[in-house]
Amino acid sequence: MKKIIGVLIFAILSISSFAENGHNLWLRNTGNKSVNVVCVKSSPTLNIAKQELKQGWQGVDDASVEFRVMADKAIKGDGFKLSQNAIQANTESGILYGVYELLRRQQTGEAVSDAVINPSYELRLLNHWDNLDGTIERGYAGLSIFWRKGEDALVVSNNDKVLWQEYARANASIGINGSVLNNVNASPDMLTIDILNRTKAIAEVLRPYGIKAYLSIKFSSPSMIGGLKTSDPLDPEVIKWWNAKAKEIYSMIPDFGGFLVKANSEGQPGPQDFGRTHADGANMLADALRPYGGIVMWRAFVYTPSSEDRAKQAYNEFTPLDGQFRDNVIIQVKNGPVDFQPREPFSPLFGAMKKTTVMPELQITQEYLGQSVHLVFLSTMWEEFLKSDTYQEGVGSTVARCTDGSIFPQKHSAIAGVSNIGLDANWCGHHFAQANWYAFGRLAWNNQLTSGQIADEWIKLTFQQSLKEANTKDWTENFLNPVIQMMMESWDATISYMMPLGLHHIFAGDHHYGPGPWYAPKGLRSDWTPPYYHKADSIGLGFDRTPTGSNATGQYHEPLQSQFDDVKTCPEKYLLWFHHLPWDYKMQNGKTLWNELCYRYDTGLQQVRQFQKVWDKVQPDVDQERFVQVQNKLREQCRNAQIWKDACLLYFQQFSQRPIPYDIERPVTDLGALIKNDMGRP
Amino acid sequence: MKKIIGVLIFAILSISSFAENGHNLWLRNTGNKSVNVVCVKSSPTLNIAKQELKQGWQGVDDASVEFRVMADKAIKGDGFKLSQNAIQANTESGILYGVYELLRRQQTGEAVSDAVINPSYELRLLNHWDNLDGTIERGYAGLSIFWRKGEDALVVSNNDKVLWQEYARANASIGINGSVLNNVNASPDMLTIDILNRTKAIAEVLRPYGIKAYLSIKFSSPSMIGGLKTSDPLDPEVIKWWNAKAKEIYSMIPDFGGFLVKANSEGQPGPQDFGRTHADGANMLADALRPYGGIVMWRAFVYTPSSEDRAKQAYNEFTPLDGQFRDNVIIQVKNGPVDFQPREPFSPLFGAMKKTTVMPELQITQEYLGQSVHLVFLSTMWEEFLKSDTYQEGVGSTVARCTDGSIFPQKHSAIAGVSNIGLDANWCGHHFAQANWYAFGRLAWNNQLTSGQIADEWIKLTFQQSLKEANTKDWTENFLNPVIQMMMESWDATISYMMPLGLHHIFAGDHHYGPGPWYAPKGLRSDWTPPYYHKADSIGLGFDRTPTGSNATGQYHEPLQSQFDDVKTCPEKYLLWFHHLPWDYKMQNGKTLWNELCYRYDTGLQQVRQFQKVWDKVQPDVDQERFVQVQNKLREQCRNAQIWKDACLLYFQQFSQRPIPYDIERPVTDLGALIKNDMGRP
Repeated sequence: MKKIIGVLIFAILSISSFAENGHNLWLRNTGNKSVNVVCVKSSPTLNIAKQELKQGWQGVDDASVEFRVMADKAIKGDGFKLSQNAIQANTESGILYGVYELLRRQQTGEAVSDAVINPSYELRLLNHWDNLDGTIERGYAGLSIFWRKGEDALVVSNNDKVLWQEYARANASIGINGSVLNNVNASPDMLTIDILNRTKAIAEVLRPYGIKAYLSIKFSSPSMIGGLKTSDPLDPEVIKWWNAKAKEIYSMIPDFGGFLVKANSEGQPGPQDFGRTHADGANMLADALRPYGGIVMWRAFVYTPSSEDRAKQAYNEFTPLDGQFRDNVIIQVKNGPVDFQPREPFSPLFGAMKKTTVMPELQITQEYLGQSVHLVFLSTMWEEFLKSDTYQEGVGSTVARCTDGSIFPQKHSAIAGVSNIGLDANWCGHHFAQANWYAFGRLAWNNQLTSGQIADEWIKLTFQQSLKEANTKDWTENFLNPVIQMMMESWDATISYMMPLGLHHIFAGDHHYGPGPWYAPKGLRSDWTPPYYHKADSIGLGFDRTPTGSNATGQYHEPLQSQFDDVKTCPEKYLLWFHHLPWDYKMQNGKTLWNELCYRYDTGLQQVRQFQKVWDKVQPDVDQERFVQVQNKLREQCRNAQIWKDACLLYFQQFSQRPIPYDIERPVTDLGALIKNDMGRP
Repeated sequence: MKKIIGVLIFAILSISSFAENGHNLWLRNTGNKSVNVVCVKSSPTLNIAKQELKQGWQGVDDASVEFRVMADKAIKGDGFKLSQNAIQANTESGILYGVYELLRRQQTGEAVSDAVINPSYELRLLNHWDNLDGTIERGYAGLSIFWRKGEDALVVSNNDKVLWQEYARANASIGINGSVLNNVNASPDMLTIDILNRTKAIAEVLRPYGIKAYLSIKFSSPSMIGGLKTSDPLDPEVIKWWNAKAKEIYSMIPDFGGFLVKANSEGQPGPQDFGRTHADGANMLADALRPYGGIVMWRAFVYTPSSEDRAKQAYNEFTPLDGQFRDNVIIQVKNGPVDFQPREPFSPLFGAMKKTTVMPELQITQEYLGQSVHLVFLSTMWEEFLKSDTYQEGVGSTVARCTDGSIFPQKHSAIAGVSNIGLDANWCGHHFAQANWYAFGRLAWNNQLTSGQIADEWIKLTFQQSLKEANTKDWTENFLNPVIQMMMESWDATISYMMPLGLHHIFAGDHHYGPGPWYAPKGLRSDWTPPYYHKADSIGLGFDRTPTGSNATGQYHEPLQSQFDDVKTCPEKYLLWFHHLPWDYKMQNGKTLWNELCYRYDTGLQQVRQFQKVWDKVQPDVDQERFVQVQNKLREQCRNAQIWKDACLLYFQQFSQRPIPYDIERPVTDLGALIKNDMGRP
């Protein structure tokens, strides 16, 4: 028996002589043609651009391409002008981006026509929630690539440099130009000389790829590591300390990007500890960084366990400060008003702060979306968000246009994504989570891209074995199209089996993985428990945020306010976000709310089963290693979807007292067992 | 939160003032009419008959029924003659059976027409695999009702007597007239005075219900408890010892039934230990019991780890002894040639021993069929078995007719079922497992009954709330018919998700619960490992028992031998029992063997999901307590079915190297995890 299995394993291993671990991301293609690069100047960045073009060229054999670093009014920031034989840009980074664009088009079969291609945002950043001990908050792909504990914590090894360079290259290839290297729940030690030295080493590897290093700082650093008695932002000693610290940093890292700050939020210190405002705090830091061109990104993710609806608090706290921030302060706002839930309406802060730079914070790491187990293509969520109309400056005031400089004349524009990478061989834990890193970069560069296009690009770059194969009709029909469809439906499926119809934050425990609508340990603040959000009772389900409830709808610009208030016009995807509705409320399709809820959960589960079929069918077109890993993850996702469905339906049924429609597949677990075996992170 | 749940639980508990625990089995109905019983004689048995009739009467009010204990040539053994106003029988037990038949007909709405109703078998026995310490081998419904360990092990309490009486009544109501009170793997202590005293107490409670007590004995008792140097059946001292022991027993229990013996089987001692034959051993015991009318049931369940196919060994060992047994020896043969597998062809011993009484041993406890978790109505299996044609004495030589005296003129006829009862409130662990106890009794009485009729009776007796309800069209359509259908399909479903197409014995470990086609610990005898039975390899699957293989087919009478040998005529339900076939063997429906295997496993899972729907739909027609218990069991069965499907398909796929057809729902677990988490008894 063992012998047979042994032989089988040997046979399987023998099939693929090359073990595909996914480390090469979307950068696996090498060219098969030669190209001459004409470039009068030499620099680290231009040299990289040259090398990349030669290595990846799949255009006309022996063609010539000229790099021109030359100002052009049509070209903005790091943009570039692309043609068959030339890339022109204002900056060296622009040339590099042009090279990656050219290669992408060659490799995906997109035509290279003459065009000026400018980025939507000036600053396109990854936020790493990496701790100095190497752990990553909400990281599901191994430990930090930047930090580690142990005797060699401060040693910059060759392996480190190779990994940082690979990281920089991947980012540059999709237009990312900044990295915040540590957790927003920052250690004060970040600003000590040892850590700054390591930051310097990282920054030097990132620099030629056009990427600036940023740090998250702890607002109380002056008292915690500076020996001061206070960290009051208006205290002269504190101001002096920060000025000196800025000077020190820039002496080491001349192009240092700036600070990201989580202040007076979830226990972090901040200016309010000293009776000051967010503006007082942010401006003090901004003044320290200003001489060197640095910026401050100040997070608006604030809420306290007050009687006020958590979803309203950031808006309440920040809108009164509009106009009070320095022009090198950017308010960093999560896409939704609560916290990266599977689906949220956009935060009402977007478009509402008209005299302040506001940047979106998206979450690439799937904290609330199945972590590195569930296949969820987040591009569709971000696309919905960016295209949401705030109406703040009339029809068409989308979140994208409110933040990218199209509408408001602020000095900066920026967007950040909370990274999903770690030391795992494939960077992201799940091979398909790479697509979210890719999509974030692509949308940060061009916030008008469609998710379908991004998926198409990413699949071609990540799974095609050669241009020849990619061009065959078979591969398109057998692999590309079904996998695109799966990715495009994946977010919707996850919403359905986790939190359909506007439900949110019904996870068990703080792992944010498995279902726990019942979760409410004694003594825990209520805004950290699911019943706060779903408000299930014998009458119905949902959070009333209309004027009869918390009136959070009042934070939205008309006509949204009225649209959300009226249950007849409120989009059903946000129904239970804004309304508490009776179990027999009639949905647009005629079903009762309870029945619709049941069908949604079941549909989500069925969709995952369909994804499994899609993936199993593409086996002939993918290497065994990635095939098996994704297959196993989908199996686990399917088990999880079943548990989500069972847990939520059985729990809510206690309140609805209605049967699950009998044509729906029945639960396979008991509520008691589910509550007992709270499904945490796997 | 907790408060709300508390209120809900209170509300649910308040709904049913009477907690229905299933303890009343199929005997829950009481009558609503009065009846006069005319009976000239008084006796414990007749008094019970009288009391039962009065208590359960639902016929014409104030009717009279006469009990007549009077010989009649048309009435055989414990049979009876039934009419509207009289029950006539040869024996007092016959009167009691007549009463139960009359009440059953009244309560199920079956007409009472004049008829003589005789039992198919003279001896209708339960075998209890109960140990003296109170555990039950292959018992899944709590500890023994007969034996316990501890200080009060020998105390006969009032509770004991009440329970034994309830047990006796339940058995009598379905015609069972004997109980073997202990495990076939018997303790020698069974024959010590303390245990015989307790046996006497049990026998006294059973007696008025027409039930005789039997014991399993250890063949080496003379040397183990008798102080002899040997247990050689031909040794005069041994013979003397058994004669004395029989005398002792009968002095205490004048109607003692006899011995059940597992000898030279799975480590148990037996006559072969002394160079004697099974006949030598059985006859010696039979001679000791003969003066008192006792019998010996000698089990044919023997096999050794030889090179001979396990399925052939019992036949090889016993057929040469045909004609050598005393007429009060009965050879007890399991239905199939291996061991109570989900489906086996009948044992070729049936009909082959023409000069020996052969009795079937059926297994009511679901050792290999999901234990007390899976809903499996075994009547369909037993019906298939009893109606199997052995062709031993021409067409129509069914197993039923070969064993019930229709064909062979042996003195006795008998049938045994390994009991599924224990101290659980509902006796059987699963409410629907009661149906198997019921069905065994009914088939033992009448081996021509159909499973549909038995299910119909049992459901009406067990779930109808009143005659009025049972007669309404709604109850029939909403409850009776769908539940009958579920029961009738349940065995087929379990075969499909466990071991379709003749697969057998592919459990992990010796718990006989979860799947383990891979299970083969180093050093374990191969006939205790699944690969011995499934023989999966790169070519195909199944056990070749044709002349090119073990030639077990040669033990069957023509035309069966030829029919089984030829893959074209071998019933597909036994295909892999008799043949090792290539993965691409074409089935009758045109599918390959591999694909058909996949569809069968999937169909089994889908069937269980359908059972869940059926059960959930009948909720309004059943008490909450039994509803919830069965609902929970079905959920677990569904999870188990999924694991069976995944485990077997993923394991066999290693050999078939073929994809699972893509229209089938995909596995949700990985083989590695399944092997690691060997699913034992829950």
